Formats: sequence, C-alpha cells, structure tokens
Amino acid sequence: MIIVMKYGASQEQIDHVVERVKEHGFTPHLSEGEQRAIIGVVGSDPDRLYNQLMGHVETLGGVEQVVPITKKYKLSSREFQAANTVVDVDGVKIGGEELVVMAGPCSVESEEMLISTAKAVKAAGAKILRGGAFKPRTSPYQFRGLGKEGLEMLARARAETGLKVITEVMTPGDVDLVAQYSDILQIGARNMQNYLLLEEVGKAGKPCLLKRGLSATIEEWLLSAEYILATGNRQVMLCERGIRTFETYTRNTMDISAIPVIKKLSHLPIIADPSHGTGKWYLVPPLALASVAAGADGLIIEVHPDPDKALSDGPQSLNWENFARLMPQVSWIAAAVGRSVDDVHDQFERYMERAPIASLTR
Amino acid sequence: MIIVMKYGASQEQIDHVVERVKEHGFTPHLSEGEQRAIIGVVGSDPDRLYNQLMGHVETLGGVEQVVPITKKYKLSSREFQAANTVVDVDGVKIGGEELVVMAGPCSVESEEMLISTAKAVKAAGAKILRGGAFKPRTSPYQFRGLGKEGLEMLARARAETGLKVITEVMTPGDVDLVAQYSDILQIGARNMQNYLLLEEVGKAGKPCLLKRGLSATIEEWLLSAEYILATGNRQVMLCERGIRTFETYTRNTMDISAIPVIKKLSHLPIIADPSHGTGKWYLVPPLALASVAAGADGLIIEVHPDPDKALSDGPQSLNWENFARLMPQVSWIAAAVGRSVDDVHDQFERYMERAPIASLTR
Amino acid sequence: MIIVMKYGASQEQIDHVVERVKEHGFTPHLSEGEQRAIIGVVGSDPDRLYNQLMGHVETLGGVEQVVPITKKYKLSSREFQAANTVVDVDGVKIGGEELVVMAGPCSVESEEMLISTAKAVKAAGAKILRGGAFKPRTSPYQFRGLGKEGLEMLARARAETGLKVITEVMTPGDVDLVAQYSDILQIGARNMQNYLLLEEVGKAGKPCLLKRGLSATIEEWLLSAEYILATGNRQVMLCERGIRTFETYTRNTMDISAIPVIKKLSHLPIIADPSHGTGKWYLVPPLALASVAAGADGLIIEVHPDPDKALSDGPQSLNWENFARLMPQVSWIAAAVGRSVDDVHDQFERYMERAPIASLTR
Amino acid sequence: MIIVMKYGASQEQIDHVVERVKEHGFTPHLSEGEQRAIIGVVGSDPDRLYNQLMGHVETLGGVEQVVPITKKYKLSSREFQAANTVVDVDGVKIGGEELVVMAGPCSVESEEMLISTAKAVKAAGAKILRGGAFKPRTSPYQFRGLGKEGLEMLARARAETGLKVITEVMTPGDVDLVAQYSDILQIGARNMQNYLLLEEVGKAGKPCLLKRGLSATIEEWLLSAEYILATGNRQVMLCERGIRTFETYTRNTMDISAIPVIKKLSHLPIIADPSHGTGKWYLVPPLALASVAAGADGLIIEVHPDPDKALSDGPQSLNWENFARLMPQVSWIAAAVGRSVDDVHDQFERYMERAPIASLTR
Repeated sequence: MIIVMKYGASQEQIDHVVERVKEHGFTPHLSEGEQRAIIGVVGSDPDRLYNQLMGHVETLGGVEQVVPITKKYKLSSREFQAANTVVDVDGVKIGGEELVVMAGPCSVESEEMLISTAKAVKAAGAKILRGGAFKPRTSPYQFRGLGKEGLEMLARARAETGLKVITEVMTPGDVDLVAQYSDILQIGARNMQNYLLLEEVGKAGKPCLLKRGLSATIEEWLLSAEYILATGNRQVMLCERGIRTFETYTRNTMDISAIPVIKKLSHLPIIADPSHGTGKWYLVPPLALASVAAGADGLIIEVHPDPDKALSDGPQSLNWENFARLMPQVSWIAAAVGRSVDDVHDQFERYMERAPIASLTR
Repeated sequence: MIIVMKYGASQEQIDHVVERVKEHGFTPHLSEGEQRAIIGVVGSDPDRLYNQLMGHVETLGGVEQVVPITKKYKLSSREFQAANTVVDVDGVKIGGEELVVMAGPCSVESEEMLISTAKAVKAAGAKILRGGAFKPRTSPYQFRGLGKEGLEMLARARAETGLKVITEVMTPGDVDLVAQYSDILQIGARNMQNYLLLEEVGKAGKPCLLKRGLSATIEEWLLSAEYILATGNRQVMLCERGIRTFETYTRNTMDISAIPVIKKLSHLPIIADPSHGTGKWYLVPPLALASVAAGADGLIIEVHPDPDKALSDGPQSLNWENFARLMPQVSWIAAAVGRSVDDVHDQFERYMERAPIASLTR
Repeated sequence: MIIVMKYGASQEQIDHVVERVKEHGFTPHLSEGEQRAIIGVVGSDPDRLYNQLMGHVETLGGVEQVVPITKKYKLSSREFQAANTVVDVDGVKIGGEELVVMAGPCSVESEEMLISTAKAVKAAGAKILRGGAFKPRTSPYQFRGLGKEGLEMLARARAETGLKVITEVMTPGDVDLVAQYSDILQIGARNMQNYLLLEEVGKAGKPCLLKRGLSATIEEWLLSAEYILATGNRQVMLCERGIRTFETYTRNTMDISAIPVIKKLSHLPIIADPSHGTGKWYLVPPLALASVAAGADGLIIEVHPDPDKALSDGPQSLNWENFARLMPQVSWIAAAVGRSVDDVHDQFERYMERAPIASLTR
Repeated sequence: MIIVMKYGASQEQIDHVVERVKEHGFTPHLSEGEQRAIIGVVGSDPDRLYNQLMGHVETLGGVEQVVPITKKYKLSSREFQAANTVVDVDGVKIGGEELVVMAGPCSVESEEMLISTAKAVKAAGAKILRGGAFKPRTSPYQFRGLGKEGLEMLARARAETGLKVITEVMTPGDVDLVAQYSDILQIGARNMQNYLLLEEVGKAGKPCLLKRGLSATIEEWLLSAEYILATGNRQVMLCERGIRTFETYTRNTMDISAIPVIKKLSHLPIIADPSHGTGKWYLVPPLALASVAAGADGLIIEVHPDPDKALSDGPQSLNWENFARLMPQVSWIAAAVGRSVDDVHDQFERYMERAPIASLTR
C-alpha cells in the first residue's frame, strides 16, 4: 500500500499518518520528495492491511490518495498457484488440454425432452448435461422450474447417457439437496455476491461453477471465488456470461476479453456461456467460436428440441441440428489454439458440409 | 402485445402466427397494411401473455419484433394503486407529507458507539436508526458484523432513544431472527434478485426496504418489489443507492432521476441513500439535498462518531456535527417541494449559522 | 509517478527501470522493501512524465503497475486556481453568488416563436436565451437547423429582450461566424473530444460552455477544458447533461454527483442541463431543483411555446407556464444553498400558488 | 409506427391523435380493443415519419407509447442491399472471401521505423499499412503526430512496399490533404458523430473506415455510416474497437458480438481492432483470433519495432515477432469460418512452431 500525501501536507499531518500506520502494527517507509511525501506500507497480513488500515488512512488529513499494490484476492490468483487448476468431474477433466462442452435445455421441462436432448448433445460431443430445476426469474409470474422432480430427471438422464450433470442451486437451504443429484453446483449470476450461498456451496465439497454477476468487475468475481476457495474447496470454475452495458441489441454484452484476463490473473478454469451472453440463438455459434479462440476451457450452451416452445430462454436456445453443426467448428478452432475436443472424430468431414453461419435457420 | 411481421412475410407465416396465438387462448387482431402485417394480442392474463406467448412468438418465422404494451409489474404500479402507499413503522409514517430521515453507523461496532450515535442523530432530527449486524462484504477477509449480538444492541438503542430500527437481513434462514429485533427489514443491493429472500421477507409481514441492485433497471427493481408484494405484504419501500457506470471518481453513480420516475410509475415510497450512492462523505450533503429536491420520501445516511476509525464504510460516513449541520438544509429544501421534517424546529436559525458546503471538514 | 515492481522482480530488472527513468531526465527514488521494490519519480514537467515516461515504463520487464500521482489536467484544477472562475457574459456573471438560468427552444424554428419564447423566459427570470441554429442530429434525415438565418434571429431576439445568447458551434470552420452572433459558444456533447474545435473556440476569446460527452469521465472532461484554457481563453463553463448507462427509461442518466465533484476539483462554473439529462419534460423540474440543491452555478432548460409541435426535442421541452412555475422553486432552493436568483422577486407568493410537481400537465 | 393509447384514453384523445396523423399526411389505422386503442401508421417516407410525426405524437394526451417499427437507417441496412459490400482498395478487396489484415504503428514517428515496420508486417501477411499522422489525444500535452510530414512518409512506405495505406483524418478542413496521400480515410471513435466530417469524407469519394464511438449503440453507428452513404460514397467499412463499460481492467470492452450483429443488420464490411479494444498487447492475439472466429472481415493491429519506446499506445502494440507468430493462427481460424488469408502460405509449418499464447513475451 502506498500513501500519497498532498502537495503542501504539513509535517504534522505526515507524522500523524506515520503514527497511525504504526498503531496498526505495520511498518511505514517514508520518502519525502521536494514536492510531496510518499509513505510505503508493507506487511505480511494483506487482509488487515486493506480491510482496516486502508479505509482509515484514506480519510486522514493531508492524504491525497491511497494506492493498493497487493491484490485483494489470494487463493484464486496465479501468484498463489502458478499451475492451472484442473477440475475433475468424476473423470471429466476441465481446465486441461481438452475443451469440454456442457449443453442442454435452460429448464428441465419433462423427462422425455431432457433425455432426448441429452442423447442429442452427447452424440454431437458434449460431455456434461445442463438443465435448470430451480430457476431464478426476474418476474414472480414466470415459470420457476420443477424443483426436486427436475433434479430426479437429471439423475435419470445421467444414468441413461453417462453424461455428467450441472444444475443451479439458488439458496443455502437447497445446497444439500442439489448436491445429492448434481455433479457440478452452479451459482447463477444474480447470486455471485450471495456470500452465504458461496460458503455453503464451498462446504458441499463438490465441483462448482461461479457465473460472473451482471455488473461484476473481474476483481469482484475473483473475490467471490475466494469465498468458496476459503472453505477448502478448490474445485471452482468461473463462467463468463455477459455483462450489462448500454447496448440493448444483445441481451448482455459478452466480455470475451475476460477469458484471457482470467487465464492471466487466475489458475481457475474459465467457461463461456454464449447463450446468456447474447440472448439470441443466431449469435450463439459465432460467440461460442470466439470464446474458444480466446482461450476458454469450456462452453455451456442452451439446446432445446423445439426452442419456440421452450418454457424459458427459447430465443437463445439452439436446436439439436444447429448444435451438431457447431461442434466440428468448435473442434477445428480449439486445435488452432492448442486444445482438443474429445469425441468429435469426424470433424473435418462434417465441417466441410456445414452451412455457413449466415444461412442458419432454426 | 403487438406482433410486427417482417416486410414480405408470407401469408403462410402470418397464418401460422395467428394460429399459435389462438392455441394459447388469446385473441389476435390482424391488420394487414400495404407494407407489413401487425397482429395485436390482448388478454386478461398478462402474466401468461408475457411469460409464455411472447417468448414463443418472437422466434417464429416472419416475425420482426414483438412489442409488450402492458407493464410486467402489477402490484407495484400506479395503475394498480393510484394513491401513495404510506408505510407505518410503529407510528412513523413514510411516504406521506413528512420526510423521514434514517441515520446511524454502517456497522454496529459496540453498544457505546451505537447508543451515543443514536442520541446524536435523534437530536438532529432522525427518526430511524440504521446499523448493520450482518454485513455483506466483497472480500471474505473483511469485517462481517457482530450478528445476533449486534441485533441486541440495536434493540437496546431503540429502548433507550425511542428511535425505530432498520437493519439488513442477508439470507432466508435469518429472516425470523432479524424480524424479532428490527422494525424494518432491509434487503441489500446485492440481494435485490435473491428471490427466496424476497419471499421470506415478504412473509415476515414487517415493513421492508428494498435497495436497487447495482445494475438493475427500474423495471427489474419494481419486479423484485413484486415478489414481496405478491406475498401479501404491502409495506414495501424502495431505496436508490447508486448504480454502476463507467465513472470511477464516485463509488457509484447516484441516479437521482430514479426518484421522480419511481413516483410516477409506482405508489411505493422511495428513500435515497447518498452514502452508498457516492462513497465519499463530502458528497453526501449535496446529494442528500438533491434527493430531497427531486422528491424523495426519506433519506438513509451513514453517521459515525469517528469515521476514520470505522470498521466499514468510513470514507462515506458523516460525523455527528456534519449530520447536524445538514438537517436544517434538508428541512428547508423539503419545504420547497411541499414536504416537512418533523422536529427540526429551529431550522432557520441553525441554517443561518451553517458553514457553506465547500468548507466542511471532517 | 510511482513504479511498483513485481514480487520477485530481479535486481537486473530494477536496475533497468531505474536506468530508463534517468535516461528520460527524471530522478528515481528507489525504496526496496522485503517483498518488493518501489520507485518514486518526480519532476517539474508532469506532461513529459505522463505522456512519455509512463507509457514506456509500464511495459518494462518486472513492472507490476505504474501509478500516476499528479493530475493530468492543470489549468482547470483547483490546485492551479483556488478561487472560483466567474465568467462575465457582457455583464451577466456566472460562477458567483447568483444562480443564472439559460432557457429557450432546442432549435430556432422561426423568429416569431423565438422572440415570444425569449420574452416568456425573461419574464420568468432567465438571463440567457438558448436556441440551436446548427443542430447535430443522430440521423442524416432529421432537421438540422436554420444555420446563419437562425443566428440572425437570435441576434434580433437579443436586441429586443436584452437577454444574452448561447448557441452551439459544430465545426472549426463555423467558429468565426457563430462568434459574431452569440455571446457564449456552446460545444456539444458529441464534440467534447473534437480537439480542433476546442482550440478554435478557445482562440475566439469568447465565453464558452463545454458539455460533458455521453461517456466521458470527469477527468476526460477536464482535459477537454484544458484544450480551451491552453489557448489563453479562461472563460470556460462546464455543463453536465447526462451520461450513458444501462438504464433506458431516461434518455440519459444525469450525474448529479458530478456537480459537487467539479466544484471540488475545478474552479470552473458548472451548469446543469436537465432537459438532455432526462429526455422527458416531466422530469425536468425535479432534476433542475436537484441540480441547484447539489450546487450548480446555473441551469440550461429547453422551453418551447408548443412542445408537441417542436421540430426537435419536443418530448423534453417545458412549455412557458411550466417554466414559469418552476422558477420560484429554483429560487427558494438556491437560497437554501446560499445562492440567489436575480429578478425572481415575488418568489414566495408565486411559490405558494404553484401546483405540486406531480400534477403538472403540459 | 404504432401508437399505443393508454388504458382509459378518452374518445376525444383518440380522435385528436388520429387527426394529427392525418394532418401530417399519413394514414392512420385505428383498432380499438376492449382495453385500449392502437393506431398503426405507415407511409412511404419513413424519415418524416420518425423525425417529425413520432416526436409530436408521443407527447399528446392519452398516448402511452409510440413504437417505431421501421429501422431509422436505410442505405446501410441488409434490407436495402442483400449482398455484402466489397470495398475495393486499389485492388485489395475487403468484405469478400479474403480476410484482410491492416497493421503498423499507432503514430508515424520516423520514416525509418515506418518503412521497416511496413516490411515486417507485409512479410507476415498484412495487406494494408496503418499509421497515424494526425493523432487525437485526450490531453493537450500529448504527442499529436507529425501531420503532413507523416502523410508523406506513409506515401513513401507505400511506394517501397506496395502496401495500401490507412490513416486518420480529424477535421473537415484536412480531408483533401489526407485524401491525397491515403488509400483509406479513417474516422476515429471520438469523431463518429462529427457529422460535418462524415460528409466531407463521404464527398472525397475514397474508401473509408468508420470506428464505433466509445458509447455508441449499433444503431447510432449505422446512422453515422448513413451520413457517409448518403453522399453517394458506398465504400464504407465499420470498425469495432471496444466500448466503454464499468470494467477497468481492460482499456475498453471489445464487443465481439457486434461483429455478427453487423453482418446480420448491414451489408458493410466489419473490421476488428483488438489493440484499442483491449489496450494491452498480451490481449491482442486472443481477441484478434476471437474476432476472426466471430466473422470479422479484417483486422487492424498496432505493431511497433520497440513498443516500450513508442510515442503513443506502446502498451497495446505488438512487436514484429509477436505479430508474425499471430498471423498463421489467424489464417487457421479464418479457414474454420470459411475465409482465407492471402500470402500466409506456410501457415501450418509456422503454426506448429508457434509458442502458446500464455508464454508470449515482448
């Protein structure tokens, strides 16, 4: 932490700041230039440094600004762990060389639609089945999911297809229940700063996926991951799903640059969600490909047998065919950035016959 | 709802849309212009209209756009209730002619600091004591409040001063506990879309204050209020506390225009929080005054006996003296917009001796 | 400027940075902590410091971050000039004790409408007449103003009423022409970073008003003012007119906090434009009052004899009556913050008979 | 245009609106439902419709909202021209099957650095040389380019290498000069709504590249293109270079989704600028690849022989080697989306030996 004093701060003010730093148990390093004084403060307890000392100092007389020079997150940083975290979902490795695709309907609507979709996405190369049983909805009058019944359907789909399962948990009281059925616990964007939920999910000890909040900075997102990591659970994945900006043509603005930024700042895997990131099905393929090109460790994509009849998120869901057409391109681009997609063997042949993006219909 | 077909949509496409509308049990009104067809859909069940039909129709072939013409929120709208809701907090009325000020420390740190501050803000004209017992913090390493012990201190401060109490509840499991001690249940900005919490708070049947999420549109905010109102609890207040924008000089950008917009769209009281809205104590007085001038029903302000030593939010807290100097100006401006502040009797005299804003020190 | 080296930066990297600083003619102050080294750099030429050295250094090996500690703007800062700048528009003083109101139509549409409106706003207490002769329009197909003819009408309205005149200039080639007719040269939000225009306006030597760009930070805004001030022209006013955020209910989000922030950082007068700031006429009165309460030096408001028939910005224009009703409230609130509005003599009587804001119609 | 009347609008109000529509020469189609009336208005002159009628109507009594159903831009829309525009820059075709790369220094600093860089980027596969002679700078104290001398250097670099040249023009008065030297006229982000500049550039009749403004919606961007197209010049390219959001880690947030959105809405070529889009050199390769994967027609990338010594934009410039390593990956990914990059013949071999992105150094 660096404390920059104002031009013309008095000796008394400087001494006062130095004194306060010492009172808090830190060692100040004062360097007085011709124009202004600067006080460096280091210490082995960055948490106290930023949570207590910084707030106090920045409002003292004569202080111009206080500059943090240590990151506020620790366990999620590359400095803490240089090697990539590879999350192991019962044998499916995320964060390693393989690029993993998660796909399925927004909401679990019925067992039949879920299992048929699971088979379709598995055939195309997906490894993990997504599907919402508990749905957060902006309006209280919208469909909120099948709840426990939906979880049971997910488990049956897993049994039948061998896909792993990811589903959202919305409140601390549901963590145990959801953890009984799901291989990955998903924390939604609206809950990124629901700290008690983060801790409960951490304690469940299962792999989890933390979506970025609609208006969360990258630093805030990593600090939320820190809540989970601090429970001792290190199986954390991050998920970029679009941020809120002034542009209204897309549902959100997908921050593709967050993908390489996370890879630089953190060792945690980063998954891209082009369905929520764009809100429009015809933008899902180009943004899925862009995410892979930018270095994502995986994709999570909404797929529905008949998107026009979906109970939620129909406008942003791919149908089976468009998802199947997308996968060989994903695989091709993954190869360009040194990744592979397992089980997309016949990529080239299928790639050659793909329709150009512009002519997709649904 | 209006369905606008594309230029050159085929008769078959138009018929298909009309058919689908009927299947859902609504009556379509087709008007075919020279250039394009428009299909109006009305119905007495707007919830189904927007939650099911709209999503389906907007992805059908030949559809250019679907325009909602009914608001998605209902119970919170002026159309549903023309007269202002006046929330009655055990005798203190919010939303009526009187402008009500809530003040106190960000966090409850000790009984002594809480009770002395309670007395100071009461003397200056505040009617409600704020103070956090459970604190949501961006980093897991920050002070998170005294919990139940803090609630007990708030209750003692109420007993000693007669002020009513407002404090935050963060998770559904804590609602009963907090409701035992607090007169108003506060839902924080990070929890605006924590729907299970909204419903639990609603069921508690007490007055509550719903802060606007950092990136919530006004419509989303009213839809969150709808979750509470739908439980039958009508004692809901809204609180503008700044939104996230690109500007970084202030902690948030306080959306003062939201105040008259809420008064226009809704019957619920609107409270302004210039402390979180700006993040800097010297901006709190001008923004508090601006909020009153714009029509706010109340203010909630952080006040601390020694802000430099606060365990949280020190940089945005007023000290006792600056709060006391602010209140007569609040009262004066309230009068200019047809409101009054009870118990600020000697406003003019105190106003005359006030220091100009620019020369405030803390 | 402070150069913060990474944990574990090598001695060679530190030496290299120190060397480069010296090569640029600055004196480095190295302090090596146990954990990392910090290099302070001061110098009497902050411009070279930030424009050359900083860019170079921040990409050198071993550098974690470079922290500027001198503001990039100079002439517009409070540090450069502690006393408020008072702009003198041919006898009308802006930035002093008096709060000055500018009002008139968005576009000059005809001489008759301009002069009648000028008389109406003067009668209500305005001192300066606004009216666009050259209009920037988002679409090339919109009405773009009467040009020189419009300027002549403004001059005649001034002759007839004694009001001063403000109008926009859009391009360097028009500065001389507009300066012949207008008392204040307005630079619109879209042109805030049109640097050649800023310099031409500066050289014209007349008072000017610089609107904040739609997505300009406060620092960028002051840096644009710096372009004008650097020409030697010190008659610069700033104008807050709303920024672009995710909220779409209002045309822009008026950043009321920018008003006290500018008063703190700069000596330049700050004017508020609630018409563009909100985009809706019924929000203009509450936001005008909020701006005054927050410390604005003046207001600029769109007024039209028949807003429904305006060629531009009808939805955000007040009619004569609503403007006249607003002025006594402006005056009342100005008094609460130590300002006065000249010529609104009968404020109290008129204030008493005003309709409450909520019942305004147009 | 659809006029939606309020619940309970009176017959008189409805008649008044219908009357006003007729007065403006349009034909209203009234449909009165049980709950509210809706008035459709079509006409062959959409410009008048939206620029005059819409503004008037939306403030009439009884009107709830007015919904535009025709796009405000015309010449730039896919509806106006279904086939892609292919801009021909003296033989280099942009917008067709080939993906075109523009590269070079931010500013022209000297002839030697320009020509050596031109040779380096040509060798790697670039077709067009970028370099600023006139530089818009946020602060008046920064390096603003070599002006005419810089243009002459660009012309010599073209003569020596055969590359085409792109450079920015900042003000209408410079258009003729810049057009003498440059093959493409670039309009910078800050000037996207400098309408007089747009028209002058249009009249110059040369290919031009229009950068998206920092806070411009996609619709506003296309409306700015409309200003150029309306002069008769159809050689217009668009350039996504990042928008302003709340995230500060990156200089801007690159809106990758804008690429497929533009391809859908418009026939104009879309170029991606990952240098300005991110502001950090190590993010340029992943975002360049993402842009190609999303369907960009070209890239514009800042390359400098020694970025640490650049007079502007050093932090976001690639050095020669990193640019050369990037190009085979660009080519590989272009192939995945049906595009090719000319002259990157040996892509596979070079690709195989490329360093992984994470290990790039500069």
